[in-house]
Amino acid sequence: MSKIADEKLAAQGRKKIEWAESRMPVLMSLREKYGKSKPLKAQRIAGCLHVTKETAVLIETLKEAGAEVSWSGCNPLSTQDDVAAALAEEGTDIYAWHGLSNEEFYWCIEQTLNFKPTLTLDDGADLIFTIHKKHPELAKEIIGGTEETTTGVHRLRAMGEEGKLLYPVIAVNDAETKWDFDNVYGTGQSTLDGIMRSTSVLFAGKTVVIAGYGHCGRGLALRASGLGANVIATEVNPIAALKATLEGHRVMKMDDAAKLGDIFITATGMKDVIIGRHFESMKDGAIVCNTGHYDLEINLNDLESLAKTKREVRANNEEYVLKNGNRIYLLAKGRLVNLAAAEGHPSEVMDMSFANQFMSMISLVENKGSLENKVHDIYAEQDCDIATLKLKTMGFSLDKLTAEQVKYLTDYAAGT
Amino acid sequence: MSKIADEKLAAQGRKKIEWAESRMPVLMSLREKYGKSKPLKAQRIAGCLHVTKETAVLIETLKEAGAEVSWSGCNPLSTQDDVAAALAEEGTDIYAWHGLSNEEFYWCIEQTLNFKPTLTLDDGADLIFTIHKKHPELAKEIIGGTEETTTGVHRLRAMGEEGKLLYPVIAVNDAETKWDFDNVYGTGQSTLDGIMRSTSVLFAGKTVVIAGYGHCGRGLALRASGLGANVIATEVNPIAALKATLEGHRVMKMDDAAKLGDIFITATGMKDVIIGRHFESMKDGAIVCNTGHYDLEINLNDLESLAKTKREVRANNEEYVLKNGNRIYLLAKGRLVNLAAAEGHPSEVMDMSFANQFMSMISLVENKGSLENKVHDIYAEQDCDIATLKLKTMGFSLDKLTAEQVKYLTDYAAGT
Amino acid sequence: MSKIADEKLAAQGRKKIEWAESRMPVLMSLREKYGKSKPLKAQRIAGCLHVTKETAVLIETLKEAGAEVSWSGCNPLSTQDDVAAALAEEGTDIYAWHGLSNEEFYWCIEQTLNFKPTLTLDDGADLIFTIHKKHPELAKEIIGGTEETTTGVHRLRAMGEEGKLLYPVIAVNDAETKWDFDNVYGTGQSTLDGIMRSTSVLFAGKTVVIAGYGHCGRGLALRASGLGANVIATEVNPIAALKATLEGHRVMKMDDAAKLGDIFITATGMKDVIIGRHFESMKDGAIVCNTGHYDLEINLNDLESLAKTKREVRANNEEYVLKNGNRIYLLAKGRLVNLAAAEGHPSEVMDMSFANQFMSMISLVENKGSLENKVHDIYAEQDCDIATLKLKTMGFSLDKLTAEQVKYLTDYAAGT
Amino acid sequence: MSKIADEKLAAQGRKKIEWAESRMPVLMSLREKYGKSKPLKAQRIAGCLHVTKETAVLIETLKEAGAEVSWSGCNPLSTQDDVAAALAEEGTDIYAWHGLSNEEFYWCIEQTLNFKPTLTLDDGADLIFTIHKKHPELAKEIIGGTEETTTGVHRLRAMGEEGKLLYPVIAVNDAETKWDFDNVYGTGQSTLDGIMRSTSVLFAGKTVVIAGYGHCGRGLALRASGLGANVIATEVNPIAALKATLEGHRVMKMDDAAKLGDIFITATGMKDVIIGRHFESMKDGAIVCNTGHYDLEINLNDLESLAKTKREVRANNEEYVLKNGNRIYLLAKGRLVNLAAAEGHPSEVMDMSFANQFMSMISLVENKGSLENKVHDIYAEQDCDIATLKLKTMGFSLDKLTAEQVKYLTDYAAGT
Repeated sequence: MSKIADEKLAAQGRKKIEWAESRMPVLMSLREKYGKSKPLKAQRIAGCLHVTKETAVLIETLKEAGAEVSWSGCNPLSTQDDVAAALAEEGTDIYAWHGLSNEEFYWCIEQTLNFKPTLTLDDGADLIFTIHKKHPELAKEIIGGTEETTTGVHRLRAMGEEGKLLYPVIAVNDAETKWDFDNVYGTGQSTLDGIMRSTSVLFAGKTVVIAGYGHCGRGLALRASGLGANVIATEVNPIAALKATLEGHRVMKMDDAAKLGDIFITATGMKDVIIGRHFESMKDGAIVCNTGHYDLEINLNDLESLAKTKREVRANNEEYVLKNGNRIYLLAKGRLVNLAAAEGHPSEVMDMSFANQFMSMISLVENKGSLENKVHDIYAEQDCDIATLKLKTMGFSLDKLTAEQVKYLTDYAAGT
Repeated sequence: MSKIADEKLAAQGRKKIEWAESRMPVLMSLREKYGKSKPLKAQRIAGCLHVTKETAVLIETLKEAGAEVSWSGCNPLSTQDDVAAALAEEGTDIYAWHGLSNEEFYWCIEQTLNFKPTLTLDDGADLIFTIHKKHPELAKEIIGGTEETTTGVHRLRAMGEEGKLLYPVIAVNDAETKWDFDNVYGTGQSTLDGIMRSTSVLFAGKTVVIAGYGHCGRGLALRASGLGANVIATEVNPIAALKATLEGHRVMKMDDAAKLGDIFITATGMKDVIIGRHFESMKDGAIVCNTGHYDLEINLNDLESLAKTKREVRANNEEYVLKNGNRIYLLAKGRLVNLAAAEGHPSEVMDMSFANQFMSMISLVENKGSLENKVHDIYAEQDCDIATLKLKTMGFSLDKLTAEQVKYLTDYAAGT
Repeated sequence: MSKIADEKLAAQGRKKIEWAESRMPVLMSLREKYGKSKPLKAQRIAGCLHVTKETAVLIETLKEAGAEVSWSGCNPLSTQDDVAAALAEEGTDIYAWHGLSNEEFYWCIEQTLNFKPTLTLDDGADLIFTIHKKHPELAKEIIGGTEETTTGVHRLRAMGEEGKLLYPVIAVNDAETKWDFDNVYGTGQSTLDGIMRSTSVLFAGKTVVIAGYGHCGRGLALRASGLGANVIATEVNPIAALKATLEGHRVMKMDDAAKLGDIFITATGMKDVIIGRHFESMKDGAIVCNTGHYDLEINLNDLESLAKTKREVRANNEEYVLKNGNRIYLLAKGRLVNLAAAEGHPSEVMDMSFANQFMSMISLVENKGSLENKVHDIYAEQDCDIATLKLKTMGFSLDKLTAEQVKYLTDYAAGT
Repeated sequence: MSKIADEKLAAQGRKKIEWAESRMPVLMSLREKYGKSKPLKAQRIAGCLHVTKETAVLIETLKEAGAEVSWSGCNPLSTQDDVAAALAEEGTDIYAWHGLSNEEFYWCIEQTLNFKPTLTLDDGADLIFTIHKKHPELAKEIIGGTEETTTGVHRLRAMGEEGKLLYPVIAVNDAETKWDFDNVYGTGQSTLDGIMRSTSVLFAGKTVVIAGYGHCGRGLALRASGLGANVIATEVNPIAALKATLEGHRVMKMDDAAKLGDIFITATGMKDVIIGRHFESMKDGAIVCNTGHYDLEINLNDLESLAKTKREVRANNEEYVLKNGNRIYLLAKGRLVNLAAAEGHPSEVMDMSFANQFMSMISLVENKGSLENKVHDIYAEQDCDIATLKLKTMGFSLDKLTAEQVKYLTDYAAGT
């Protein structure tokens, strides 16, 4: 059973999925391999993750490996309705449409719990929190779960340390082939892509203020300066801030940056990063958006209460005329601009992230009963295997250590 | 009178135009200034230039300055139908819609000649060629024209040198504030934007082959490497090629590059840059597009004849399965990918290009009768004035020479 | 007591030290602070670390904090004789000169053990290995040690895991304010600086082959491409290799890269990275150097046996004419080119690395008796404190979380 | 006859020249070609150009082609004494040493006029000015001259337009293979190299203020940001300034930039770019240098009069302690820092510049009597030939237009 926006979009969605398949060679090769051995047979996977063409490739790979799947989207604005329709048409249980209300959002999650999942797959931990808060009884049958985001892992780790986690979770986010690629290169390009689609502005010559210089922020800065912008970073962490300065960027308080920016992007995982007094000191025409998981980074209440008028000027682009006469343009209602206004992370990076999701599902099943109820790192071998596969599909070659070099590697007596 | 696709799109188009106005402060300040003095009063301007939101700002500025205007699009795929509708609604004569046939294309140009223009404004020189070939009698009343593109200027200069030009033309393309910005930063960003919208692929890690390392090619290389791609340039000009190598790129023959590229972009102004044998040696999944003015750079006949099947996989993205089994993805049917699949040059660069167009129209009128029938450069002062205005709107400041420094500047006796 | 090259160089060395002091504000502020409390009083510190102007600032800071110090250089070619003379003049025990033989190198280390150290400070672990191999009895009085390099930490960790470490060691290398700055930005700039001083070649347009894409390799690639070179990376680790490709570089086997490179830089920590068959396939005029800790990365025996003739063409630059007629230029005899041909890491990065060394010495004393005999990470607070100090001296400001934001940070129940 | 610093340095200088030869394949191939036909036979060439290893390769190529040569250096601090010695040893008339007084500088030029030159070769136009001011009678026998710098060409063009030039001059500076390479990539790298050698500071994280965003300034900005610095440009020309902003840099008045910069580099060709009030508002520790031709860009009188004390802290690095307590570090006494503190433009770019000098000398002889007494551009073919040769030596390949493509190039009737 499914609830989607419009089943007539299925053909268009199917094309999108096929396009994604052509750009995800690692996951497709795992589909081929595990489609034979079916290691997820008899598993019921509840997933709560942006319904995009890449997620569809993951879902269909999970099914090929034997799993039953029930899925919801993890963000009110990120579902691609045509992809959802294509999945529904092929018989996947899916509860997702673009423009969910908050109530509908949780209703969708609830539906995916009806078949009593044995595994959960999360992006932002809303599914796992729902289970913990409302349906703790389901946890008994759950072998484990995975989590895709920095924000989610952070919270789950805190729960794990307090002994409140009811089943083991693998931090897919922390796989090197995930966070060091998806967060840097995926968020970097797709966020700028979202800004381009919703504004069409020239980046060259603009001052771009990036709030948060973690992996996402670094990726954003790379891409913004790669497009000719002058980057200012704001940070609360001194080490991250120092990195920003050594990459050639300025670092200052948001109070100061607010006056200088042409475009603002939040990527902090923190709420209230841009608030009332910041809006008031911005230049006329400033563009404001968020690429962090939740829509709390930009304080929309503050913006609303400062505004005289508000109207949509382009898709995903709303003009707020402030009482001081200045115009502020808010993209994608402060939600993830890369998913709402573009197509989320490019298939090529999701290829690695979702290969990690897929292999982690298998790993949870294989290690059933032996993992503590806390957050676990993925296996280093899995990371390496995925990177090796990826490199090969890109046409690049590695050197190989000789036996003598391997010996040197571990021989601490050699030297000088 | 007008012929457009759908007048119901006018409201949406008007919003787009307003958005462009908010990003074109130079042209808007000229509109304000010359809206009072009306220097184009009694002039009839025939224009043939991509019907985009930025062009609409130009057209309405020309009208504010007193001119009557009649307009056609200069490329079968570049018209934004909503913008055309908004212009028509306000009473501009406009003959343009997306997806013109070749016949319709010339029919549209013909309509704009009905009111016997006194000035022509061209992008690619199709309007001026039509006058010269079919309606030379119109030339008598024409004070002069302007041309926006490298390709067009190149051809008109050749005509001028052969004494075949029937009225003077100002090479707007050659304004420093045009070619060194529009061609580099405008083409650079908007072409990559077009590729992202039509493919959603990750640039990081890709090998991007850029045919032609002129101003456009350099802009493309800046942006492609700014997004993490490895750039290969192909060239016929040794000086341009040398620049590419000193910017860190490889330069090789297309025969060699064809085997290595993931994405190919032509920006040469030349025909047959990518031909049959190149397609045959490309990797499976290669993406091919053009950002030069004409759709002759990629030889489509060769591609068609090599292909077993062909289908659209996304908007502006067609899959050709070759007889050798490889898939080639052609974007925007080999037409200008930045206009067909994105929104053309960002408003911020068109602000300068079109300020030059506007000031050149005024300049033609002011110098009526005193210009030879050849291609003229724009006035250096115009260039400087536009740059100064632009800088000011961006919030940047210049130093000013002191009297003593000005003296030093011209005093060749000073020194050492 | 000391043994140095030439005491007459003291005045020149003192100027160098003063220059370094002006560029190391963090360490200087710690000197001021702990110069009062003298937490290292009664400690005897044996150090084995490149004798540069920055090291001199560290040594004099350790002395200000109360310690007695005895020092040797950790590399035959890295000692700055004038700095050594200045230190000796002020009464530091120092055994170091440029151009040590292997025998002299170990003799110097031995001298620094005469005063029975209570703390050891290492760069490459030669001092600590000497104690473990030849003077294990000294370990009883040693509170702990520190290690500055990736290579050294790697080896010590192996020893620690095998239970063979006789006292605790703090992995200063692993401080974020060390490895993520010193290894990336310090090695990056100083290595290219060393190549420029010893060759004066233009980087723009060159193909630079970087062996190893760890932190050092990434820094080298940043700087080489920042100077206009085309970068090829070679790697054995697939994740590191993948990062290189997503930064826009090519990755291939050294067998293939050897044919393409104009300049080769090894930064792997592994021996035999460039060997005979690589030299044989290099282009005429290729430049080869190493920036890894040991001089084993380039196989010099292979080079010598392939060469017909050899001569010095510039300081730190030797020409080998191979039997095949090609000329290979070896810099700094295959030793750390950034220290031998330039001045090692710039003071600004050593400011942080050595602040970590200094604070780790204090930390070892404070935690005397409570640390296991293995390799320990530095305290995260120390890292943050140093970064905060550094940022402040650079004139940059951080945001600060509000109480409500701190609450959000730890409240895993908030969300969506 | 010669006057040099120390003839004992000849062997060392010869090695330097050989090294330069190995990096200047274009000029060496011209030497081979014209060493046979001797087109400069019976010519007497007076040259006034920095005596570096690359200039030596030019001088010896001129001699191989049949010319007699007499040479002076064109800057008091740029002569490499060992190179001068090597040239003298081989019998070149040379009058140049490092650290000339102003009086000696002109004395040297005078010596080179003794043999009544038939051709002059200038860098900064001091030789040609000396002839015009003091020895106009020599002009009768002079076929023509060449000029290497932007500054010099600017002045000579003014003289030519006023009818004051006594013989024709070829603007070697304006060859595309000169200014677009030498000025951008040569000045860019070598200036930063000079700053590194004289300060050893880390560029990453620094704010670098570049005065003048012409070709040199753009090259400096490329390299400074390539090393991780944040670049601020100052300009008087709005078009140049606009380019700086679109490359991602800030543009502001020097009054504002003075407060922000860590490192200042002047590259304007104008005097008094940094004056008293700028020094007074600089941060403690600021580094100031010049890479323009004359030492007038930084007002040294102002600096001297603001300073309490002054001392040399490193080679080419003087500390001025201002009355306000701040320390300012002046490099190379405000003279060309790339020549005084490093080795000037790398051989690879001088290869092209000097190939142009060499071919221009031949061209002057070939066109004897037919050139007007003004400044002439070099022949476009010469530019292309040199670029083609250079590319070939670098291992890169060009595409070639087919006959049909050549036809298209000139056929303005084709299209759309």
